[in-house]
Amino acid sequence: MAAEMNGAESLVRTLLAGGVNVCFTNPGTSEMHFVAALDKVPGMRCVLGLFEGVVTGAADGYYRMLRRPASTLLHLGPGLANGLANLHNAKKAHSGIVNIVGEHATYHIAYDAPLTADIEGVAAPMSHWVKTSPDSRTIAGDGALAIEAARQTPGQIATLILPADTAWGAADGIAETAPPRPPAKVSKDAVRAAAAMLRGKERSTLLMGGDALRQPCLELAGRIAAKTGCTILTEGANTRLERGAGRVQVERIPYVVEKALGVMRAAGNLVLVGAREPVAFFAYPDKPSLLMPEGAKSTKLAGIDEDIEAALEALATELDAIGTAPAGVAAPRRPAIPSGEITPAAIASILGAMLPENAIVVDESVTTGREFFPETAGAPPHDWINNRGGSIGYGMPVAIGAAIACPDRKVIALEGDGSAMYTVQSLWTMAREGLDITTLIFANGTYNILRGELTNVGVRNPGPRAVDMLSIGRPDLDWVSLARGMGVEASRAKTCDQLVKALGAGLLSEGPYLIEVAL
Amino acid sequence: MAAEMNGAESLVRTLLAGGVNVCFTNPGTSEMHFVAALDKVPGMRCVLGLFEGVVTGAADGYYRMLRRPASTLLHLGPGLANGLANLHNAKKAHSGIVNIVGEHATYHIAYDAPLTADIEGVAAPMSHWVKTSPDSRTIAGDGALAIEAARQTPGQIATLILPADTAWGAADGIAETAPPRPPAKVSKDAVRAAAAMLRGKERSTLLMGGDALRQPCLELAGRIAAKTGCTILTEGANTRLERGAGRVQVERIPYVVEKALGVMRAAGNLVLVGAREPVAFFAYPDKPSLLMPEGAKSTKLAGIDEDIEAALEALATELDAIGTAPAGVAAPRRPAIPSGEITPAAIASILGAMLPENAIVVDESVTTGREFFPETAGAPPHDWINNRGGSIGYGMPVAIGAAIACPDRKVIALEGDGSAMYTVQSLWTMAREGLDITTLIFANGTYNILRGELTNVGVRNPGPRAVDMLSIGRPDLDWVSLARGMGVEASRAKTCDQLVKALGAGLLSEGPYLIEVAL
Repeated sequence: MAAEMNGAESLVRTLLAGGVNVCFTNPGTSEMHFVAALDKVPGMRCVLGLFEGVVTGAADGYYRMLRRPASTLLHLGPGLANGLANLHNAKKAHSGIVNIVGEHATYHIAYDAPLTADIEGVAAPMSHWVKTSPDSRTIAGDGALAIEAARQTPGQIATLILPADTAWGAADGIAETAPPRPPAKVSKDAVRAAAAMLRGKERSTLLMGGDALRQPCLELAGRIAAKTGCTILTEGANTRLERGAGRVQVERIPYVVEKALGVMRAAGNLVLVGAREPVAFFAYPDKPSLLMPEGAKSTKLAGIDEDIEAALEALATELDAIGTAPAGVAAPRRPAIPSGEITPAAIASILGAMLPENAIVVDESVTTGREFFPETAGAPPHDWINNRGGSIGYGMPVAIGAAIACPDRKVIALEGDGSAMYTVQSLWTMAREGLDITTLIFANGTYNILRGELTNVGVRNPGPRAVDMLSIGRPDLDWVSLARGMGVEASRAKTCDQLVKALGAGLLSEGPYLIEVAL
Repeated sequence: MAAEMNGAESLVRTLLAGGVNVCFTNPGTSEMHFVAALDKVPGMRCVLGLFEGVVTGAADGYYRMLRRPASTLLHLGPGLANGLANLHNAKKAHSGIVNIVGEHATYHIAYDAPLTADIEGVAAPMSHWVKTSPDSRTIAGDGALAIEAARQTPGQIATLILPADTAWGAADGIAETAPPRPPAKVSKDAVRAAAAMLRGKERSTLLMGGDALRQPCLELAGRIAAKTGCTILTEGANTRLERGAGRVQVERIPYVVEKALGVMRAAGNLVLVGAREPVAFFAYPDKPSLLMPEGAKSTKLAGIDEDIEAALEALATELDAIGTAPAGVAAPRRPAIPSGEITPAAIASILGAMLPENAIVVDESVTTGREFFPETAGAPPHDWINNRGGSIGYGMPVAIGAAIACPDRKVIALEGDGSAMYTVQSLWTMAREGLDITTLIFANGTYNILRGELTNVGVRNPGPRAVDMLSIGRPDLDWVSLARGMGVEASRAKTCDQLVKALGAGLLSEGPYLIEVAL
């Protein structure tokens, strides 16, 4: 058996043995032996994307739900380049991904054929680990190293470059992947410093991020809050926040700098739990970058690479809060369903009223969704996923990965129209795989966020050329046509009644459904 | 005036003074001051794309037609990353482009905000020139350097990174761009060596690329061919080939290795004129990378950075061919219009029969279009543009740039369905700008080229997983819906009669029109 195995097959078998059994793929010629190996070896679920940003974003969403890396299969430098923006987002979300990037046969590179590019150079800015495997007998071992890099805590982007002759040459067999190292425990000093801050006279807040946003950690934080009177906050954008009725409720730091500063002034000193001191998304003339009010201090309880749950448990123990009932638990609440014109507030109420239990909400609603949190706080338990890297076009691909990871859960993608266009090809993959995703497109016909930003950077009364560059109307995008063009059922909602009806249809459907929400 | 100018305005004015008066754009917050400057300063045509690959590809197409760089405006590292694949193609086509990439304010970078990335690292693999301008008083001068880099012969990719505070801080005024240096003349030795090869007893061929494919050079080559009996070939993919009735006709080296080797065996020794010794697109087990038959020699007359026309003139003079009537001039010929089932051969005949005078054909037809050349050779004079870098998704964006560059010419984009999906957002820009582009989508529902490549790399009888990864049916893409969803008029052709009718409608239209050609 081993004698007949080629490099590609040894890599596929190594991936499977290492627990990587989904491959999001957009292959080309140089990857044909890997494709053939995927065909030959059972066990790998292959999901095709028609654009590489779909592929990498899906791997991000998959990791966020399962904490297990998927692999991608990408075609040479340009194919990897097309996937970089969503790798950037995945990197900032600490998602583990194993990218397999095809390369010309080693001896072919010197001839500078059309697709020749510096693949390692393309990979480097968005990868934690990059290697070009030199030989068909090393590729399995390199694959194991890539898995190890991807699945440590926090997850990492590992990019393994696979020259064609490395794929087609003879291999020795499967390589073994070392089990993940458990995350480091935090020091007692860190726990004592956090406890001292929370016990102090000044107002204080637990600022939570990463794994701290899962239910066991949130519950510990709630106990600590009940005991000490501290508040709990999360960063503006979260990898995955477990929330809803019966769970400890947390607020996010707002995007707009002035609002964020207001929240931070109220927050006082910060105990950092898988989070960093808050930073403005962008710089603006005469506004601060670091959103720490004057005099506010912070102490780090745990970083994202550390055992956050154990740290919170130690802190709760230190504070004698371990038996305290958690504060801030959200009561079940379904808002009344509004009628009439569709506004962001009305959408929030409709979502709060209709969100199904165990839903996964992938939120790329940008300006439309800034006030969705309060109205959905009492909905049945659900996950809320945000864009950590800020490169738009992350939402629908991440929804794909989440749906592949959790086939029994309803995924709801909330999309700005401008954002959704960057990876619009996602709709086709949703249709092909029959994924249970309901996508709401908030169609305001503009890069609305940039209208505000133009003002934020100090531009008054923008002229027609500027306004035109921020408007994506003329012509209006017809999302119903776009969705149907890729095999996804769709409808348009111009009133609240129509939105309720359309959302009902989407939630009832077991496949993909798109709603153009006219704003 | 100068006292009130900020960095962004000084850069916009420097671009305009340097002849860069089109900006293909997809801006974000960090570019808002540049957007405001575009608004304030008249003279820059701004063309919005809803995805950055559209933006960079359009700049490529623009340069190919005008030999003048356009600028792009891109949002931070991920925005640039989304444009990289078409920058790769532009780089391989030797197109000059000035990328303006926004960056966080210099003091904000250290805070590692969500969109922070190594922009220079992202730019490097696909750029000849990269600089982060440190200051609002240096940005105009750096802009001038970027223009100089972009517009030398051959064109280059220049990436200028513009931190937000460099845009909003005070500037001193416009910087002057140095005039382009004329390309170097080739040596007399190069001319003599070429003449000796062409005069020799062995069969010989002029292998032409780059500027050698424009009419004056082709005519000189035709005179040389008439005098010496040599043949004329071009590389497989050309930046821009002038062809059609009354022009010297040339054949391309085929994509498929076996066919290419056959052509090269017949070609004999090579005189390289803006071209390199031919190389296989990909490596395959037991097939050569370099497509030079055993014993064949080559001599370089001129590289793409040299004055190719002067070199050919010197060669023709040396061979006393300057007064010889050119050989191989294509006679006017319109093929008969076929009816019945649509096949690649039928499409070739219909194109040959209907191609309007002065059309610009942007060819991303991949497998469908391999035999389009003979049937279109006698059509009225037109330009034929190919993908030099091999990263698919180049066609519709390049068509946009060509249409902006040449508003009086009909642009015809020939697209494989798989290829077109990578930059499908192009259709919206075509609609917004009312561009005179007729797009034919060859809808075979598969990455057809990869089916062949699977065989080429030695895989027999691919199984269902492999076949599925190469098929883009299930669900079928409905291109008429996709086009209408982005405001482009469209129709579907299932027979030759329908294709003739639809192509007639497209050619008659003065705006964008899409035809789904069912194969």
